[in-house]
Amino acid sequence: MCRWVAYRGAQCFLEDLVTSPAHSLIDQSQCATEAKTATNGDGFGIAWYGERDEPGHYRDILPAWSDDNLRSLARQIASPLFLAHIRASTAGRTTRDNCHPFVHGRWSFMHNGQLSHFERLERVLEARLDDQLYSARKGSTDSELLFLLALEFGLEDHPKQALEAAIGFVISRAQALGLQPLIRFTAALSDGASLYCVRFATDKFAPTLYSGRMTGHAHDSYCLVSEPFDEDTHRWSEIPAGSFVSVTDAGIDVAPFRPAVSPRAIAV
Amino acid sequence: MCRWVAYRGAQCFLEDLVTSPAHSLIDQSQCATEAKTATNGDGFGIAWYGERDEPGHYRDILPAWSDDNLRSLARQIASPLFLAHIRASTAGRTTRDNCHPFVHGRWSFMHNGQLSHFERLERVLEARLDDQLYSARKGSTDSELLFLLALEFGLEDHPKQALEAAIGFVISRAQALGLQPLIRFTAALSDGASLYCVRFATDKFAPTLYSGRMTGHAHDSYCLVSEPFDEDTHRWSEIPAGSFVSVTDAGIDVAPFRPAVSPRAIAV
Amino acid sequence: MCRWVAYRGAQCFLEDLVTSPAHSLIDQSQCATEAKTATNGDGFGIAWYGERDEPGHYRDILPAWSDDNLRSLARQIASPLFLAHIRASTAGRTTRDNCHPFVHGRWSFMHNGQLSHFERLERVLEARLDDQLYSARKGSTDSELLFLLALEFGLEDHPKQALEAAIGFVISRAQALGLQPLIRFTAALSDGASLYCVRFATDKFAPTLYSGRMTGHAHDSYCLVSEPFDEDTHRWSEIPAGSFVSVTDAGIDVAPFRPAVSPRAIAV
Amino acid sequence: MCRWVAYRGAQCFLEDLVTSPAHSLIDQSQCATEAKTATNGDGFGIAWYGERDEPGHYRDILPAWSDDNLRSLARQIASPLFLAHIRASTAGRTTRDNCHPFVHGRWSFMHNGQLSHFERLERVLEARLDDQLYSARKGSTDSELLFLLALEFGLEDHPKQALEAAIGFVISRAQALGLQPLIRFTAALSDGASLYCVRFATDKFAPTLYSGRMTGHAHDSYCLVSEPFDEDTHRWSEIPAGSFVSVTDAGIDVAPFRPAVSPRAIAV
Repeated sequence: MCRWVAYRGAQCFLEDLVTSPAHSLIDQSQCATEAKTATNGDGFGIAWYGERDEPGHYRDILPAWSDDNLRSLARQIASPLFLAHIRASTAGRTTRDNCHPFVHGRWSFMHNGQLSHFERLERVLEARLDDQLYSARKGSTDSELLFLLALEFGLEDHPKQALEAAIGFVISRAQALGLQPLIRFTAALSDGASLYCVRFATDKFAPTLYSGRMTGHAHDSYCLVSEPFDEDTHRWSEIPAGSFVSVTDAGIDVAPFRPAVSPRAIAV
Repeated sequence: MCRWVAYRGAQCFLEDLVTSPAHSLIDQSQCATEAKTATNGDGFGIAWYGERDEPGHYRDILPAWSDDNLRSLARQIASPLFLAHIRASTAGRTTRDNCHPFVHGRWSFMHNGQLSHFERLERVLEARLDDQLYSARKGSTDSELLFLLALEFGLEDHPKQALEAAIGFVISRAQALGLQPLIRFTAALSDGASLYCVRFATDKFAPTLYSGRMTGHAHDSYCLVSEPFDEDTHRWSEIPAGSFVSVTDAGIDVAPFRPAVSPRAIAV
Repeated sequence: MCRWVAYRGAQCFLEDLVTSPAHSLIDQSQCATEAKTATNGDGFGIAWYGERDEPGHYRDILPAWSDDNLRSLARQIASPLFLAHIRASTAGRTTRDNCHPFVHGRWSFMHNGQLSHFERLERVLEARLDDQLYSARKGSTDSELLFLLALEFGLEDHPKQALEAAIGFVISRAQALGLQPLIRFTAALSDGASLYCVRFATDKFAPTLYSGRMTGHAHDSYCLVSEPFDEDTHRWSEIPAGSFVSVTDAGIDVAPFRPAVSPRAIAV
Repeated sequence: MCRWVAYRGAQCFLEDLVTSPAHSLIDQSQCATEAKTATNGDGFGIAWYGERDEPGHYRDILPAWSDDNLRSLARQIASPLFLAHIRASTAGRTTRDNCHPFVHGRWSFMHNGQLSHFERLERVLEARLDDQLYSARKGSTDSELLFLLALEFGLEDHPKQALEAAIGFVISRAQALGLQPLIRFTAALSDGASLYCVRFATDKFAPTLYSGRMTGHAHDSYCLVSEPFDEDTHRWSEIPAGSFVSVTDAGIDVAPFRPAVSPRAIAV
């Protein structure tokens, strides 16, 4: 299971959230306290928004804790909006193309969770992509394919509905193949303006998601994390399962996230 | 354009063909004299047959000339049947999964050449694979996909016919899409018993292929190469375009290679 | 802290000890039960003896658990004498040249432990090497330097005495600099004929070392490990701290290991 | 022989000099027209100055032309002062720590050239470093060691004199060992404020160095390159051998570079 942090707010060095805290993302990669697998050594990545429309993108397959490049980049690069991810492989091999975040045009996406029966679902899911999105697939992960499906279902215009449609499509395809759908999906994504997050699962075990208002920054700076950086319980709020989070200039908003499938599909 | 060597005969250290000759495969990777692109620095790989049914397999994305591991392995490993390849990328990114040789069960495969319009053909070619072969695809190259298509068309039972059918299928799919088919295909493959090679193109520019009887080995040792190692013109015989080569215990045999498409498709 | 296995006996596939057991070396790399650091993701290496005088050598900086090359090599290569190591960095950066085992001519060496104050000791220790051994140093680890010191002190002729002299030299150099010597040193090394291991520390915390006779092999096959592969307490014998182990055709022998320094230096 | 570009002037995206020109640094890495070795595939690096005192630093061992990370970073990062380098190995193995530029505190340094007899000189040169600079050495190249020697001789206070002293020291050490000194040294370095370059050799073959005023930028933007990006002969001025170049707010200045050794040492 992976670990990630997403940030939107006052310009901030990536270092402040990726390296510096007592329990930073990199610390978590070596000893995550809430993760199912203790070690997150299967690569890492960052995507950040700067002066270009599309985000900067840096990924590598080393353990994050041993990458001098990451340390220097996180120290140099400041951004008002970025995603950072450390991977523990569940599906897809350890290659740069399988490391999160994934980037498509202006959009970036990262994910923690799992999609059961992916080896049987992959082909029917991929078949739903148009030719352009099919060609855009570079790796072999379930996560990148979910991102491309969301783009197929209209992510650029209606993020929440597109993600609900994409997850709903996966559930219905699994049912059509006689499989018990099991999706655990805690994700962050951005178009460079807003930051969106989802916490969802078809069972009771949606991977954790917390939001934190950042001290030392302007009032509208938010950090969304798969696991809190510290034990300051006043700072971190758990986002309930079945939520869609939007962070915009208007602040943070949490809405229900309901994939467009029959209720029976969401087994509990 | 890539460079490769395939060997079948008396047990021989990989070093003897990959490192030691004056103009070895590694030398070629830095300064190929007949290749279109001067530099072959986009990864390399070896597949060799030993005590197991399936071949050993080592690939990496470094330039071959700077890989200590390759040098040590080539020095230690002796085999009666092996393939070695150095890649210059034409399609597919530089990842281990895109490096030749490709391995599937007992079979190994490597390729030098090109398949035009691959970005438009990839999806229809992939669609022809059965679910198991679809799942076996790990990279994004045209070469690996041609290998899987050959398996789909019966490579394990009838290598020559399966390869003719696979190439013919690609040509007919290109025509169906209104594309002028252009395939240049010089490949080596093996099931651990026999060594097979193809030299073929739809135009006049089939990538070169040479066979050489190895001195210092038993009479039935053959080396098939994309480019001769030395200027000993007595040693190397050019294999004509449109050929299928079999190296077995019975020696070397060269037969016509005729993809199963209408004559008009093979434009000259 | 690192994990390793060394084997001498009937020819055996590396896979049998590196991959296959329920609690294999690769399993240990993700979840070591006796190690100080839970994760061993800072590279790995193997050295094995075959038909050449010098060992084969394969190292990489990926986590061992995600390296397809290692899996294939371990499955193909059989050897009567080999070392395998998975690294958790304590000194020296994550590069191939810092991965164990280290090889020098016929000799191979790997290590689990630590050498305190290495940043102050490195220069005086390196100064003790002759020009040839100085030039042979490729990485920046304390382990490789200890190996070269042992070579300087006569490893090729008298392994036990050379290692005692090397460790003793380190202790005396530390004392000369006014430092409290702290060495924890559990190592394996070989010249291709015999296998030698040491378990030693200047305090009470010598890293663990176990020997096991291998079932299913001839009577003289031994496996020396930093941590047992399974809970079969009949199989594994703990080697006491302060021991030098020799595995030869005559079987296994355990002798006291006493670095050549004044008794006062071995503080407890 | 390596290829590099150094820039000081109006803030500029790294992409504009590393990727975009018809004959960019990356193009040069695949087909350098003036270099001794045609291929520069042994790694690359960038160092750039931004909001921190010390430069950002990114290096990797892949061929530059296949690194998506480099492409994205060069597109995102804008800087008024940066160095970029593509390596063809002459001494030192292909590791990140051997890739240029090297960084020490505020200083960055990169080099194209060679130092003959380095295998015999390395130890006496390293011995000249104080303990702190000795510990700062991470790789095994002659280039990094020359940089550390320049720091030892006062680079931070008197760049020209320190470099002259360092090169002079190398020449005198070579003579003391009875070796014919041969140094070819075309280097760029910076403290984040000024940009300095050297073109020097003990024989007639100092590696080339050109300066170019950048169009489309403010009048004080300069690009120093090992080889011109294009055939615009009005744009590029060759810097003569034996020169020290300073680029500051006052513009570009070229002074003689005279290592502090007896004239006899500079054999022609």
